[in-house]
Amino acid sequence: MTDTINHQIRLATRPVGLPKRSDWQFTETPVPTPRDGEVLVQALYLSLDPAMRGWMNEGKSYIPPVGIGEVMRAGGVGRVVVSNHPSFVVGDHVGGTLGIQEYAAVEGTRLNKVDAKLAPLPVFLNTLGMPGMTAYFGLLDVGQPKPGETVVVSGAAGAVGASVGQIAKIKGCRAVGIAGGAAKCRYLVDELGFDAAIDYKGEDVRDGLRKHCPKGVDVYFDNVGGDILDTVLTRLNLHARVVICGAISQYNNTTPVKAPGNYLSLLVNRARMEGMIVFDYADRFPQARRDIGAWLAAGKLKSREDIVEGLQTFPETLLKLFNGENFGKLVLKVADGR
Amino acid sequence: MTDTINHQIRLATRPVGLPKRSDWQFTETPVPTPRDGEVLVQALYLSLDPAMRGWMNEGKSYIPPVGIGEVMRAGGVGRVVVSNHPSFVVGDHVGGTLGIQEYAAVEGTRLNKVDAKLAPLPVFLNTLGMPGMTAYFGLLDVGQPKPGETVVVSGAAGAVGASVGQIAKIKGCRAVGIAGGAAKCRYLVDELGFDAAIDYKGEDVRDGLRKHCPKGVDVYFDNVGGDILDTVLTRLNLHARVVICGAISQYNNTTPVKAPGNYLSLLVNRARMEGMIVFDYADRFPQARRDIGAWLAAGKLKSREDIVEGLQTFPETLLKLFNGENFGKLVLKVADGR
Repeated sequence: MTDTINHQIRLATRPVGLPKRSDWQFTETPVPTPRDGEVLVQALYLSLDPAMRGWMNEGKSYIPPVGIGEVMRAGGVGRVVVSNHPSFVVGDHVGGTLGIQEYAAVEGTRLNKVDAKLAPLPVFLNTLGMPGMTAYFGLLDVGQPKPGETVVVSGAAGAVGASVGQIAKIKGCRAVGIAGGAAKCRYLVDELGFDAAIDYKGEDVRDGLRKHCPKGVDVYFDNVGGDILDTVLTRLNLHARVVICGAISQYNNTTPVKAPGNYLSLLVNRARMEGMIVFDYADRFPQARRDIGAWLAAGKLKSREDIVEGLQTFPETLLKLFNGENFGKLVLKVADGR
Repeated sequence: MTDTINHQIRLATRPVGLPKRSDWQFTETPVPTPRDGEVLVQALYLSLDPAMRGWMNEGKSYIPPVGIGEVMRAGGVGRVVVSNHPSFVVGDHVGGTLGIQEYAAVEGTRLNKVDAKLAPLPVFLNTLGMPGMTAYFGLLDVGQPKPGETVVVSGAAGAVGASVGQIAKIKGCRAVGIAGGAAKCRYLVDELGFDAAIDYKGEDVRDGLRKHCPKGVDVYFDNVGGDILDTVLTRLNLHARVVICGAISQYNNTTPVKAPGNYLSLLVNRARMEGMIVFDYADRFPQARRDIGAWLAAGKLKSREDIVEGLQTFPETLLKLFNGENFGKLVLKVADGR
């Protein structure tokens, strides 16, 4: 290790609407010295996720907000450069909450070993990481799809959505994705094997659902909220399950959340709408990683990452999640991944 | 039987907003002659329910709408006057879908015997009828309350709500009702044994929930929708269950349904919102009737009916459900209940 300076990006103010560069503070601090039980990790790839927008807001949520002046919270994979924990040695690859910075001193108990021989490192932030876990447990545990049922997923070309549709296919369901733009829709069908895709920018979603879900919707996995959620509610089957995973269309609102006015479809159809947070399933991540690893190895599941280089690009790169540019798992490359 | 004329009330047009007298057609037809397998029933008590408003609207729902010119659909209890079905004899008391009319010819297979020695006849339209079944299965099957949890119910002085709160108490929960007016709220606490009641006309529901649900809300049984649903969503506990039974505040809307803008509380709290329709539980009604009958006999559950006399008052009596006047199960008395 030759660096002595740790470049960090901290939350300067609580953003109103889309986060601007001026909402961030760029700091240089000495590379930290790990304490007993801690490991110093050099970040290689950092995970940029829609949920980060929620962590920037004040107020009660499923985890505390990032404090003003704190390094922005982010998952990542990196390399051990100093270890004061018996489970790790220098050179190990690890995953954990590293933050938007080059170096993090993290308790060893809060890191997972990553086997770089199994898959390229960015895959551990995608199908083998939180998006994969989210898709796996959200679809299978909350959505409970049965073979032959129709599964619809929004944000389908994003990290979670792409895995949801592919796992739905693996489980014998009809998979229909909703995404923005013809390129993403073609990718879903031609590359990932979705049965159909609806381009919400190019066609009416209601028409698309009528056409591509002729037997109605049994499971809807919602990543976007807003009008798309409200439209899908009108197409639910009896006893349908709506998995509320996110609402990316609403995260940068400066007006109230667009509410699902068609929620009474839940009553008419005795359907269920249920929220999920991936961390609740932590004790079962190994099982999901085994299944997903096997599907990756068998070519049944594909992992696509959208890798942008440079810690300093973080403020603009993050926005790709919210303006529809993002295609696959968005990853920030911070150092050479060896 | 001396009557030869059957007075009936038919749906004349699809109401816009609150149903007006002019939306109904008053007809006189000959008392029908039952066919083979049918039973001629003289209606004694007819059940007036919020769900009737939905049946008046065009469009797909959980049952077909009442057709224009058809006798308005309604459950009721009556007396057998002619029987062409081996299970019934003249003088039997029966329950079934009789319609807003004095006489109905109904297939014997679609009638239930009612034992008038067990309880006054109107009770078979309340705690021993559909409202009781709705409360029982909606709370216990969908809401799944555990002892010590807090159950909140809206429309708490209505037929379903009153039973929900009382069953919650029987199951060891804290029961908090939301109702309109001090008299109803006093009744819930003093007569029915609710732990607390919130008068939505006299106090801020959010403040009331803070005060009376200090440990948050584990089960919310929603009969009203609208602002009250949206407010309760902000007080949900982790893994809370929201039972969507009705949305009486929205049934006469001429504007779009007031949607639950706080639905993302489901995500933050990994909570569930699920619709229920009582007819789905028909095969388990006997079990519910046994339990409720035992609770009634033991004085653990009270049944309150709001009985209005006269078939011809139907158009105005029905409105009591929607203007907050109704207190207990609303029943229309059509003939002397012997």
